[in-house]
Amino acid sequence: MRAITIPEPGGPEALVWDDVPEPVPGEGEVLVEVVASAVNRADLLQRQGFYDPPPGASPYPGLECSGRIAALGPGTSGWTVGDEVCALLSGGGYAEKVVVPAGQLLPVPEGVDLDKAAALPEVACTVWSNVFMIAHLRPGETLLVHGGASGIGTMAIQLAKAVGAKVAVTAGSKAKLDFCAELGADVLINYREQDFVEEIKAATDGAGADVILDNMGAKYLDRNVQALAPNGRLAIIGMQGGIKGELNIAMLLGKRGAVTATSLRARPAGEKASIVAAVREHVWPLVAGGHVRPVVDRELPMSEAAAAHRVLEESGNIGKVLLTLP
Amino acid sequence: MRAITIPEPGGPEALVWDDVPEPVPGEGEVLVEVVASAVNRADLLQRQGFYDPPPGASPYPGLECSGRIAALGPGTSGWTVGDEVCALLSGGGYAEKVVVPAGQLLPVPEGVDLDKAAALPEVACTVWSNVFMIAHLRPGETLLVHGGASGIGTMAIQLAKAVGAKVAVTAGSKAKLDFCAELGADVLINYREQDFVEEIKAATDGAGADVILDNMGAKYLDRNVQALAPNGRLAIIGMQGGIKGELNIAMLLGKRGAVTATSLRARPAGEKASIVAAVREHVWPLVAGGHVRPVVDRELPMSEAAAAHRVLEESGNIGKVLLTLP
Repeated sequence: MRAITIPEPGGPEALVWDDVPEPVPGEGEVLVEVVASAVNRADLLQRQGFYDPPPGASPYPGLECSGRIAALGPGTSGWTVGDEVCALLSGGGYAEKVVVPAGQLLPVPEGVDLDKAAALPEVACTVWSNVFMIAHLRPGETLLVHGGASGIGTMAIQLAKAVGAKVAVTAGSKAKLDFCAELGADVLINYREQDFVEEIKAATDGAGADVILDNMGAKYLDRNVQALAPNGRLAIIGMQGGIKGELNIAMLLGKRGAVTATSLRARPAGEKASIVAAVREHVWPLVAGGHVRPVVDRELPMSEAAAAHRVLEESGNIGKVLLTLP
Repeated sequence: MRAITIPEPGGPEALVWDDVPEPVPGEGEVLVEVVASAVNRADLLQRQGFYDPPPGASPYPGLECSGRIAALGPGTSGWTVGDEVCALLSGGGYAEKVVVPAGQLLPVPEGVDLDKAAALPEVACTVWSNVFMIAHLRPGETLLVHGGASGIGTMAIQLAKAVGAKVAVTAGSKAKLDFCAELGADVLINYREQDFVEEIKAATDGAGADVILDNMGAKYLDRNVQALAPNGRLAIIGMQGGIKGELNIAMLLGKRGAVTATSLRARPAGEKASIVAAVREHVWPLVAGGHVRPVVDRELPMSEAAAAHRVLEESGNIGKVLLTLP
């Protein structure tokens, strides 16, 4: 089969569409014939050599896919060869075939095209686990999402609105903010022109955000704590703005606040399976009901993964960039 | 009545035993005739002028007391004049009488002397809310308690052991560590001679602590994150080591960790009442059953509050220092 390989870390040109051995499903695993994968920021870091796959994971990039089950390993149940599925992966989605633990499989939600389903697993699992399972966003609370037009952002807006929360977003252009508004965002903040701490306070009678979903890490740490409401929860899922930041403990303590930081990829298979099961229970009905949809910026042939990486590097996308196979 | 007043912030001598007007219980409040109060570090800060009482609270120090109900305000139920109680206060415990919202009252646990009961409310509510309600310490997990011989520390050791957790403590002397061992602590770390990160890792097969209860704030922030196990939770309840510290977000994210910071005194009355109710449900039976006891370092007459403050400032205590009335 063919897969995107990374013979030497580097720029987008480091991605090479090459012949590789076909993987074999082990105990509790299935083999999926891939129809589409999607690009995540972690893939860019892996390509640059900054994010090695966890032990036992595929060496090829790609943290999610959609496709059809091609073979079942021993000890799997509930799935049949030919089933249309999407999956959360520890790697290997940029390939014609990939092996997945059965606990990380999801059916394609009703009403979603098979290729578009590749846009769902990472963002649904990341947003559900952080905003709902960890930060416990409740109806009537306010969620602040940084990067509202990203894949994560567009899912977070839709899910938070579906459960009855108020949603504020930051983004870097009017076009992106307009799109967030179409998805239901209530408060639109252009981070190039406005201070998000002032804006979120103005929009909440001075209280601040009950939950913040952050992809910036160190650069936003102090301002995120400023922007938290009493009992607020800051959920960090990315470090695009650096890894070490000053934490004002007195301010956090005064608000009885919480700071959490997680990465989905590094979780053991059991935790991933729990999150996937929760997503199937809570998010999939919202997708099937038309309240939440995959937001796809564009689809490119998988062999052109380099071009797809350039789109994310320039933050040129609204929603997900998919990599498709014929 | 008489109370300890603070005419001018300053050293222990700033505490003046003086005549003051008697408080009157309002809607939902009771008047307690105080038998004993206890010294908390927050009292030292208040005396120095660094920690103003929250709006509506008594101007006198004292965050807990024991005594007898002297009068009921309108709209209280479940309590009778003469009941022996202890209480979580927003202030005013260093006095002959104090007004308390009824939701912050607790019966004196079976088997505990009325004066000794003053040692329980702050530490039971702080430890239960942080270690159990927020950080969800589970049987079999490891708790690291900084300042194991303090009032908070001695309660944390006993509660964590009672629920089947492993307990590690830090303290600054052999005498204090020996006392922690008597209370059940499994891992004893002298912070003057040992590195707590190395010691906690050595004691947990390299994993680290699942929950850390920290009173040091900035000074320990980075090492606390180092000492956390995967999915670990750092609960900060004090800032004796400073208020701003560097947070290594990458390390926290790699562990899927959480950092929380809380102060009991600043919580609104409704949250305090919820915590008090949880303590009555979960902690009081452990006290009545003899599994958890108040640890009292010494008792001093309330008029000698200055001497009691000096004991805490020199960290000369093991457990709580009580202030008693005849």
